[in-house]
Amino acid sequence: CIFCQIVAGKTPCFKIHEDEHTLTFLDLFPAAPGHSLIITKPHWDDIFSAEPDYIAAVAKNSVPLAGVLQSYTNADGLGVHQLNKPAAGQTVFHYHMHMIPAFEGRALQLHGRSQGNVEELAAEAEEIAALLAKVI
Amino acid sequence: CIFCQIVAGKTPCFKIHEDEHTLTFLDLFPAAPGHSLIITKPHWDDIFSAEPDYIAAVAKNSVPLAGVLQSYTNADGLGVHQLNKPAAGQTVFHYHMHMIPAFEGRALQLHGRSQGNVEELAAEAEEIAALLAKVI
Repeated sequence: CIFCQIVAGKTPCFKIHEDEHTLTFLDLFPAAPGHSLIITKPHWDDIFSAEPDYIAAVAKNSVPLAGVLQSYTNADGLGVHQLNKPAAGQTVFHYHMHMIPAFEGRALQLHGRSQGNVEELAAEAEEIAALLAKVI
Repeated sequence: CIFCQIVAGKTPCFKIHEDEHTLTFLDLFPAAPGHSLIITKPHWDDIFSAEPDYIAAVAKNSVPLAGVLQSYTNADGLGVHQLNKPAAGQTVFHYHMHMIPAFEGRALQLHGRSQGNVEELAAEAEEIAALLAKVI
């Protein structure tokens, strides 16, 4: 599981935040600027098997991140999307919540079509992480 | 606010569950069978102003409900969608999380185009509430 490898530090990610229960990093295929994922550290395929306390921890972390993403990207809104099973659009089968800044006139997209620029993502993650650290 | 009126009992809803922090009921304009909303009882417009502990309570309740909705509707998956500001598709400005059963071959839709059949929704809410009460 690619997300388990990220949690274990065996695969790099554009990290924004980490705590006992969760890990937050930028989506490598961003659907919008600032598109972030919050995942549970333990592996559960999806919400159907996940432990509620961990899902609550993800949700709790999403609140300060929402404000930071909105101000950082100057977005007009934010969609929180958590997809379970392919029929719902899930593509990585480790529980994760998408935080996707929304912009007026831009249609909702849940997955980006191409990989983001790696240097830009690295800089973005560092800046968002610094802003989040001030409010979390 | 229509959701505050529902919380106050001044407007009816197809109730599924209620606790100290949250209220769960069927969406009156279902995008799919079993389309449910979990809302915070206090009024916050959206995630940007909400209190994290209440958002965690919503998320915690979403886990057993996800399983119940999947088995009740025989869905192939489930989308959890929480929209903030009109740019993200929000239409009622009181924090709420959509739980939308997903079916293979059926395109994602976040809001239904027409009101559901009131008698069917009432029966559905009662059945889902009874199933949820066994696992919550």
